[in-house]
Amino acid sequence: MHFFSSDFKLGILGGGQLGKMMLYETRKWDIATKVMDASQEAPCAIACNEFVLGKLLDYDAVMDFGKDVDVLTIEIENVNVDALEALEEQGKTIYPQPKVLRTIQNKATQKLFYRDNNIPTSEFTRYAYTSEIKESVQNGGLELPFVWKSAQFGYDGQGVKIVRELSDLEGLPNVECIAEEMVNFKNELAVIVARNSKGETKTYPVVEMEFHPEANQVEYVICPARIPEEVAQKAQAVAKKVSEGFGQVGLLAVELFQTQDDAILVNEVAPRPHNSGHYSIEGSFTNQFEQHIRCILGLPLGKTESKVAGVMVNLVGAEGHTGEVVYENIEEVLAMDGVTPHIYGKKMTRPFRKMGHVTIVDADMAKARQVAQEVKEKIKVISK
Amino acid sequence: MHFFSSDFKLGILGGGQLGKMMLYETRKWDIATKVMDASQEAPCAIACNEFVLGKLLDYDAVMDFGKDVDVLTIEIENVNVDALEALEEQGKTIYPQPKVLRTIQNKATQKLFYRDNNIPTSEFTRYAYTSEIKESVQNGGLELPFVWKSAQFGYDGQGVKIVRELSDLEGLPNVECIAEEMVNFKNELAVIVARNSKGETKTYPVVEMEFHPEANQVEYVICPARIPEEVAQKAQAVAKKVSEGFGQVGLLAVELFQTQDDAILVNEVAPRPHNSGHYSIEGSFTNQFEQHIRCILGLPLGKTESKVAGVMVNLVGAEGHTGEVVYENIEEVLAMDGVTPHIYGKKMTRPFRKMGHVTIVDADMAKARQVAQEVKEKIKVISK
Repeated sequence: MHFFSSDFKLGILGGGQLGKMMLYETRKWDIATKVMDASQEAPCAIACNEFVLGKLLDYDAVMDFGKDVDVLTIEIENVNVDALEALEEQGKTIYPQPKVLRTIQNKATQKLFYRDNNIPTSEFTRYAYTSEIKESVQNGGLELPFVWKSAQFGYDGQGVKIVRELSDLEGLPNVECIAEEMVNFKNELAVIVARNSKGETKTYPVVEMEFHPEANQVEYVICPARIPEEVAQKAQAVAKKVSEGFGQVGLLAVELFQTQDDAILVNEVAPRPHNSGHYSIEGSFTNQFEQHIRCILGLPLGKTESKVAGVMVNLVGAEGHTGEVVYENIEEVLAMDGVTPHIYGKKMTRPFRKMGHVTIVDADMAKARQVAQEVKEKIKVISK
Repeated sequence: MHFFSSDFKLGILGGGQLGKMMLYETRKWDIATKVMDASQEAPCAIACNEFVLGKLLDYDAVMDFGKDVDVLTIEIENVNVDALEALEEQGKTIYPQPKVLRTIQNKATQKLFYRDNNIPTSEFTRYAYTSEIKESVQNGGLELPFVWKSAQFGYDGQGVKIVRELSDLEGLPNVECIAEEMVNFKNELAVIVARNSKGETKTYPVVEMEFHPEANQVEYVICPARIPEEVAQKAQAVAKKVSEGFGQVGLLAVELFQTQDDAILVNEVAPRPHNSGHYSIEGSFTNQFEQHIRCILGLPLGKTESKVAGVMVNLVGAEGHTGEVVYENIEEVLAMDGVTPHIYGKKMTRPFRKMGHVTIVDADMAKARQVAQEVKEKIKVISK
């Protein structure tokens, strides 16, 4: 099939920064795109061929959107999967496959999938309502502490909470959820697995993620992870197994725990490009966005190795600031070697909102990590 | 000044592939842009915030375009410099400076500039009309062979011809021109020099350019150039001297000859990102387009070193093909390690038209060069 400078049209559901970074690649290859998002201010509104306003969870909006695209993909899981299934039945090519998205979209079915496929993951219990948990704890069926996760619609740290005492449950939505055993982890890791529509697969190197304790958001993503080779190989093997289980076409970002005993447990997955892969734009031979496009168009996969070590720092809105964004000290940061900021194009900042990221690359990982710390301490995402 | 996600507006005159690749960077940093080009199909029409139709050589069109931008730059030299000078007098910030552009735009004044500044370049004679040359040869004032170059508007190999006998002059436009002594060169090299508006400068590594004999277009750009260190240092020194002479803000691509005696002569310059710098997108710590943006906004310059060796192959329309473009065998090429095609987005191909490029990177230069040859032999830019 003829994708470049042709009548081919790629549809992307979701107009946020992941879609925006996919558009760098479609522009690079002159692949025509149509994007839908609920907001006219979406980062994707510029750089696609056609931008459509619409709610991603709305059945009719998604059905209508999918009518005239040749391949349809997503940049966020919160889309109407019923519509995707209907479009697929009509013969539309949709990646990731709706069946995969269905299983992943709900954290309870996702965990059950791991259990059913003998994929190592932390123990968990599923609840129809958050309110059932209190009773479960009181009659000894569930031990504190645990991690509460809403089954649906968690994003950007929302929908996840560490529960150390029952009062921590107050204020949580009364929804379908899971309670996971807390993992005493040594490291949080991630592996991105790519599979194209012809079944060719490749994995990216293992990355290490350092998290901000309260906000439950990543602070540093480090590639390659500073772990022993055997642990890295184990992590890649588990990620591959997960990917083989799902059979997803496109990328699958697999978040993992390395326990104190160096065992590997699956935390969560996302069937799309992922925050843990942004370093790849400056660090890898094939960045994750280009790789995702290769996957869903059935093009050969690109080399996943790194050219240089990379550390990514998220730029999130500072606490106490809401309003038109200002990137304080960004000019000083631009003076540091190997530093590339990415500004997503959201006009308004608010505390913990993902506004951009900065990738620091260097042949020497120790140097990259050190500069990343200076970047993190220097740059502030505040309001006017 | 506040450039990111703000009211700041960057104007770019010219909507071709160089502007398109500048737009990757302005999208990356959420810098608002306005672009002017004479064609609605221009590669830049998507991914800028505002696209305006207009002739770049038209005084009124350029004056009108420049009215509401904060900084104005170019992606092609063929623009109305009178208008730029008038805008500059009104207080507009224009990079490269109109004075620099004026000198460079005319190949005769450019060569005179080198002569006047003791910058080594080949001998040349200036003519008001091509028709004067025949007489000059006949009365012994000019020797064959020589290189004929129109003083203005040469692009993509047009406006340059090797003249071995008088009959080669037939068909050439009767315009202001120069006749340059042919250089018996060992290599054709290029060095890109970056200067920001605060006077900070950096140079890129020396690249080596292999040319297609008839079409006078580059076939391979190789970075780093495979030349002795002393020659590379000489090339950088000459390029720096040229750049200091012009004092350009922005990039200056300096094309050089390495003679059989390893002397360095300046061939031509371009005050903008350049074909010889495209490898930098995948190969360098700071690509030339991001660097040009840093220059003209007065931001600190980024590191110019390479992460990996890079070889760039131009994708030009095959002879005998005119019409809607097809990139034959591009999928096979995508299967090769370290290979990244760029498709500029021109819908119609014709012989020798610059339709895209492919960059091949590898830690090992010999490997990159070998794969580049396979790419070149495999991929064909033909018409439907």
